[in-house]
Parts: sequence; structure tokens; C-alpha cells
Amino acid sequence: MEPINLAAKFDRFTEQWSPRVVAALNGQLVKLARVQGTFVWHAHEAEDELFLVVEGRLGIEFRDRTVELGPGELLVVPRGVEHRPFARDEAKVLLFEPAATRHAGSTITPRAVDQQPWI
Amino acid sequence: MEPINLAAKFDRFTEQWSPRVVAALNGQLVKLARVQGTFVWHAHEAEDELFLVVEGRLGIEFRDRTVELGPGELLVVPRGVEHRPFARDEAKVLLFEPAATRHAGSTITPRAVDQQPWI
Repeated sequence: MEPINLAAKFDRFTEQWSPRVVAALNGQLVKLARVQGTFVWHAHEAEDELFLVVEGRLGIEFRDRTVELGPGELLVVPRGVEHRPFARDEAKVLLFEPAATRHAGSTITPRAVDQQPWI
Repeated sequence: MEPINLAAKFDRFTEQWSPRVVAALNGQLVKLARVQGTFVWHAHEAEDELFLVVEGRLGIEFRDRTVELGPGELLVVPRGVEHRPFARDEAKVLLFEPAATRHAGSTITPRAVDQQPWI
């Protein structure tokens, strides 16, 4: 039960598209991710996923539109909805999702990182 | 599935100790609260509760110690742990907790606001 400083946690890793876990509660995990470039299209069949931008700008592409988020903005992507995150410059993002959530959902890709370490 | 700007949402209310709901996912709610002064001692028997400070400073008193959080810092209070939030000056706080969470847990107090509106 220690305070978690987001900036200090982000300083502990540099890899992009490789979420780190910083807290757990009620079967959910709080993760931090650095992202830049474009991820893969995917959906999480059973999990809603929250993105909160801490620094930079995050885009989330949907099949019918694109949403852009800046610092202090969040979006919930409902379960089953295909999405593809992207960022022109590096963005720092907080994720909130069930512990069972797979990185790229049902999409098979070498970019999926399903062993996400605690920091 | 619209972006939620935390600063803009905070501008939509001024009441302290009266959380507003801004998002729901996986049976959990994201809430925003303005707090100042000292709340009541309480515990949530079945719910872990996350506090993330957006602006200002938030203290959380426990029976054996006190934790202070600044902007960009979060703390998870595990279920069953008695706590009493406080803030000398007004703080803006994001809460993440199960939808069933009662404001003051099992503590009976007129300060409990269990009808928390969406904004």
C-alpha cells in the first residue's frame, strides 16, 4: 500500500508497446505503456479497456472513425470493438483492464506481449 | 465511446465529497471527486479502491500511518482496510472502484452520497 508515482514508474522502462503492471484491484490491472507508431488491429472479446493519456497524444482507430486523446483524456473501448492504437510521437498511456486481458486480444501477432512484468 | 476530458468534467461540478461518474467498464466505475477537509473513517468490505490525484494533494489516513499523494500519484486501498481521506486545500481526485462500492462503506453517516450522478 505504497503511493505509485506514474512519472517515476515510466522512467523505469523504455520499451514501446510493452505494458508494465503497476497496480491490481478487483481482478483488474493498472498498466503503463509507452507507444509510438501503429499497433495491430485487435479486439478483446470479454474485456472493456480504458486508455488514459498521461503524456503525448494517442490515436485510436476504429473501423468507422478515429479518436484522438491528449493528456488528461481517457476513452473506454468496449469489449468486442476492433481498434488499433497509434501515436506519431511517443505517448505515455495508463491502461485499466481485467487481469485476463491479452495484449492483442484474439489477433495472433509477434507483437503481443502477454507476459507483462510488474514494475 | 467519446473521449473524456478530465479537466472539462471537473469544471461541471463544484460540490466537495460528492463523486461524479464519468465512465464504466467491467463492472467498475471511474469517478471524479473534489475533496477538502476530512472525510469519515470507513472501509469497503468487498471492494478495493483506487485514488489517483489529478490536482492538489490528497492525504489518506490509516489506523497506523498516513499516506500523501500529489498529482500523478495513485494508491490502492485494499478491501477491508479502514481509511479516512483528507485534503488541506481542495484536491481533484479520480476514483476507480466497483459499481457496488458505497461512498462511506459500512459507516453510517449523512456525508455518504450513494446516488452519484453521471456527468
